[in-house]
Amino acid sequence: MIKDFEKEIQQKIDLKTKPLGALGKLEDLAKQICLVQQSLTPVLINPTIVAFAADHGIAESGVSAYPSSVTAEMVLNFLNHGAAINVFSKQNNIDLKIANAGVNYDFPENENLIDVSIAKGTRNFLHEKAMTEKQLQSCYQKSTEIVEDISKTDCNIIGFGEMGIGNTSSAALLMSSLCNFPIEKCVGRGTGVNEEQLLNKTKILKQAQENHPQPKDAYEALQFFGGFEIAQMCGAMLHAFEKNMLIMVDGFIATTAFLCAFKIQPEIQKNAIFCHQSEEKGHQKLLKYLQAAPLLHLDMRLGEGTGCAIAFHLIQSAVNFMNEMSSFEKAGVSNKSS
Amino acid sequence: MIKDFEKEIQQKIDLKTKPLGALGKLEDLAKQICLVQQSLTPVLINPTIVAFAADHGIAESGVSAYPSSVTAEMVLNFLNHGAAINVFSKQNNIDLKIANAGVNYDFPENENLIDVSIAKGTRNFLHEKAMTEKQLQSCYQKSTEIVEDISKTDCNIIGFGEMGIGNTSSAALLMSSLCNFPIEKCVGRGTGVNEEQLLNKTKILKQAQENHPQPKDAYEALQFFGGFEIAQMCGAMLHAFEKNMLIMVDGFIATTAFLCAFKIQPEIQKNAIFCHQSEEKGHQKLLKYLQAAPLLHLDMRLGEGTGCAIAFHLIQSAVNFMNEMSSFEKAGVSNKSS
Repeated sequence: MIKDFEKEIQQKIDLKTKPLGALGKLEDLAKQICLVQQSLTPVLINPTIVAFAADHGIAESGVSAYPSSVTAEMVLNFLNHGAAINVFSKQNNIDLKIANAGVNYDFPENENLIDVSIAKGTRNFLHEKAMTEKQLQSCYQKSTEIVEDISKTDCNIIGFGEMGIGNTSSAALLMSSLCNFPIEKCVGRGTGVNEEQLLNKTKILKQAQENHPQPKDAYEALQFFGGFEIAQMCGAMLHAFEKNMLIMVDGFIATTAFLCAFKIQPEIQKNAIFCHQSEEKGHQKLLKYLQAAPLLHLDMRLGEGTGCAIAFHLIQSAVNFMNEMSSFEKAGVSNKSS
Repeated sequence: MIKDFEKEIQQKIDLKTKPLGALGKLEDLAKQICLVQQSLTPVLINPTIVAFAADHGIAESGVSAYPSSVTAEMVLNFLNHGAAINVFSKQNNIDLKIANAGVNYDFPENENLIDVSIAKGTRNFLHEKAMTEKQLQSCYQKSTEIVEDISKTDCNIIGFGEMGIGNTSSAALLMSSLCNFPIEKCVGRGTGVNEEQLLNKTKILKQAQENHPQPKDAYEALQFFGGFEIAQMCGAMLHAFEKNMLIMVDGFIATTAFLCAFKIQPEIQKNAIFCHQSEEKGHQKLLKYLQAAPLLHLDMRLGEGTGCAIAFHLIQSAVNFMNEMSSFEKAGVSNKSS
């Protein structure tokens, strides 16, 4: 039955007025969306990106090129529509929501800021667990509520972005722990540390890894290494899957959140659209581990959900050709002679 | 002076609220557009794609998976808004124009079809020159007029697509002749010939090459191997450059048209935006020859200008971040600590 429907989708694609397979990855994408929506006339409704922001205790150990204060400053920039994610979301008519998952700042009340703050940053995982079990549960609960609210708008495609100085360090440790890759293969330049700083970052993260036991699962890995925004992205992705939304997966940090979600619920892969391959070193390896074929290769490494925002439009193209292109028969075009 | 302006552009990019270089290829693109437009606040006006269609004498020698009649049928499909290029142009608010450069069909009058027909197809270049010198001149003149007309709408970004059963054969010979690559490296599956047909296609094109002297320049190569749509794309690109438009370069056929234009006017490279890398075998090699870094890698091989249409949106993203993103200073975000 499922196989029959897959065949039906493939047939609809193959009868469009184009050589077989000529739309390449857009055809695979159209097929995936049809399967998720169980429809030959797929539709994207109310595309939404939630950008989660949080601070990281590890930042005090000097792993980033930017000071921790930038997390809060960038959230204010989001709220003032000045960041890349604002520009690209607006361009694509994507509803952008900003969530404070745990930034070290007292934001004035703002209707565009969702307060799901757990604490004013995680603890420094070099010395202790980044968060308590209770905080982790709270991350799941609060992010689930966000996605539940969004689902009430009939949104069926959602992406997640992040902002958090220090969070490539959390991401590297999550990736290393959950994929069993040596930490050196997972550490990258983040916001742009230099060669010396990169060596230092790697040394610190190696030490941090040694200071904790091997996490027994994704939950424990998140508890050990954080951050609040990664845990919330993971929880949000899991709930988006429950709601059968298409899930746009952004860059390195968002993909480690997806990795956690995937370890908890492998079926989530079916709904995942890998939007781009980041320039951040670990991302390519992580995408390969997840057998993901990302849509864009633009050497971006910004996070915030920017990869989702600019890839959305290609996802729309995949849906549009399925719905709007003529078939050979309808157009009166001769099909392949052979 | 020029160098100073380049520095000014780079500084504007670097002061945007993001890590240095974090928007990857979009930053290179923004820089290129600023340079072409000599402006720090670039703008894209009335994006237009012209799809040129023509028939090829070589098609009678069995080089394509589809019969020649498909060229005319697809033009009718374009006019009825049923093809991929229609769907993607509409999605991106791109003005799509269809030009009959020489299709073997009597089209009823249609306000959306520009008649620049040279003849009802080129001659078979296996036996003789694809077109006369006069026909080639006519191609240049007519395509120049099309672009001249379009420039009156203030259009400053234009792409070119094509439809013509047999035209990957012309393209392969143009590439081979003008880049001095062996023909085997330039021949691909086109609309989808099988292994045996590919061997046969290669044999025929090798024979055709032997039947002509080495063309002394791009003009002669176009005259020998055609087609009308490729020569018109070449002429249109040259005039678009005269008008200082940004030129979106599509897939394999369009890139060989660009190659001809580049051989005639190397400066055109400055205005060229390579939209995607096609799945067609020769394209990757040709892009490398042109030192081009294409925006998209989606394994598409459809032509029609579809790569331009779906990449346009990324070009818009490059322009938008330049104009709309806040600077560190304006947003009150701390810049890099190091």
